[in-house]
Amino acid sequence: MDFIKEWKTRAALVDRALDDYLPAAGAYPAIIHQAMRYSLFAGGKRLRPVLTLAAAEAVGGVPALVLPAACALELIHTYSLIHDDLPAMDNDDFRRGKPTSHRVYGEAVAILAGDALLTHAFALLARAREGVPPERVLQVIEEVAGAAGTAGLIGGQVVDTLETGRAVDAATLEYIHRHKTGALYRVAVRAGAILAGAKEGELAALTTYAENLGLAFQIQDDILDVTGDTARLGKPAGSDERNKKATYPALFGLDTARIRAEEAVQRALDALQPFGARADFLCAMARFVIARDY
Amino acid sequence: MDFIKEWKTRAALVDRALDDYLPAAGAYPAIIHQAMRYSLFAGGKRLRPVLTLAAAEAVGGVPALVLPAACALELIHTYSLIHDDLPAMDNDDFRRGKPTSHRVYGEAVAILAGDALLTHAFALLARAREGVPPERVLQVIEEVAGAAGTAGLIGGQVVDTLETGRAVDAATLEYIHRHKTGALYRVAVRAGAILAGAKEGELAALTTYAENLGLAFQIQDDILDVTGDTARLGKPAGSDERNKKATYPALFGLDTARIRAEEAVQRALDALQPFGARADFLCAMARFVIARDY
Repeated sequence: MDFIKEWKTRAALVDRALDDYLPAAGAYPAIIHQAMRYSLFAGGKRLRPVLTLAAAEAVGGVPALVLPAACALELIHTYSLIHDDLPAMDNDDFRRGKPTSHRVYGEAVAILAGDALLTHAFALLARAREGVPPERVLQVIEEVAGAAGTAGLIGGQVVDTLETGRAVDAATLEYIHRHKTGALYRVAVRAGAILAGAKEGELAALTTYAENLGLAFQIQDDILDVTGDTARLGKPAGSDERNKKATYPALFGLDTARIRAEEAVQRALDALQPFGARADFLCAMARFVIARDY
Repeated sequence: MDFIKEWKTRAALVDRALDDYLPAAGAYPAIIHQAMRYSLFAGGKRLRPVLTLAAAEAVGGVPALVLPAACALELIHTYSLIHDDLPAMDNDDFRRGKPTSHRVYGEAVAILAGDALLTHAFALLARAREGVPPERVLQVIEEVAGAAGTAGLIGGQVVDTLETGRAVDAATLEYIHRHKTGALYRVAVRAGAILAGAKEGELAALTTYAENLGLAFQIQDDILDVTGDTARLGKPAGSDERNKKATYPALFGLDTARIRAEEAVQRALDALQPFGARADFLCAMARFVIARDY
């Protein structure tokens, strides 16, 4: 399998759907719709929605049916980036080489664009009911709201914000990652599986996959911040150390961090065994996570 | 009917449910749950959730079944107040005589508390499926997300923010009110009616009621800002004129504004005719809106 090509195919599907599902850039009041689109089409790799599509495939579902839910997760991810970048939070002027929302549209519109993306995510989820039993859609909405809330994404962001610049122990580091990034990976996979009618055992296996994928992703991000190349990464290497951020290499050393990432990937691959060839893409994704240098 | 007593009974029901439905104040990370509760229990009159309960009653439904949805609307209302008060938006230090969220918890936590209330609203809505067909719940989630989004609440907020300090025409004034406040009143009533199984004609009548109630409410607010007493209002009278805010009295004069409010109330009452005694509370609410001096 040409993994990168397969990824790009799915990401292109997501891009077209996002464009369809969002209010037109010119719809009144135009500035908010432009701000929503600006951040949404700022070069994201569509990792979460691609996971949703791939999880549906793994249980024999039709990816097109889960496309609205997949896009909803990208909206939530994008809203969280806009709010994280605000002056009151991380105060970042650039993301992926482009000025952040508040630099382009001002703080008020940036706050509202984040609010609007989060709100629109739930509109999309509720609309995703064609061909899917409504109970499943409600279960997904409940899980997505849980993963995006204070027991997930927001909880992780709160602890990350409060702990910035302080020495953080391993338990706090794990809490931050499992909530700030892990919760959305997990629900991205689960949403695709649930909507596609996964059996209980399949859902449990895919959940194990998602949790370990998220962990491996985060450890590798931390490793690349130490060992990576600024040009390849698209962001300054070494920024975690400069910002005194808690990372796996800082806490455990580079070698142990690498072993932990490999172990997580192995657990993710083991969980996919029962799915056979239908999980080829998810397997390739897990291997890619620690092979990448960007 | 002792309207105020009936209102207080329903508001107390909402208060208890909100306390039940929210994560405990001590749940980790505590600061975000404290911030959510601080703004939620800062003296709101629970107008929107009370409307949801009353709309369910009007079509013969059981109010207890719509309580989660009713509370969800209060969460959305509260989130919008927290974000509106932020320094980048209206920059208000006090609301209802208490320091605003960002004054107490700092801007970062205030932004996240707003995000968390909005997110939790959808968790509550999705959970509100006991005794209600799931299709109805999904319809309500879709309508609430629509009313809270850029075609509703957020759209109104965007235009209000952009137009602050500028001369605004009648069409823009109406847009702001119909979206910034009207959309939530409207969906509060519709959500209660839909969940309780309103027939098409009942839903249409209650929607007419809600739209006119919202209009009358806003006009009366504008009138009271000119004619009211600071002590009774609980906020400084005359602030609209000082802030150069567009208002009905400023655009049409006090007498015409009063007539418009009365006409709106009459349309609201006319819409309730078919419901008979079951709509007594909604009728009393409509009369109260223009009779109040606070």
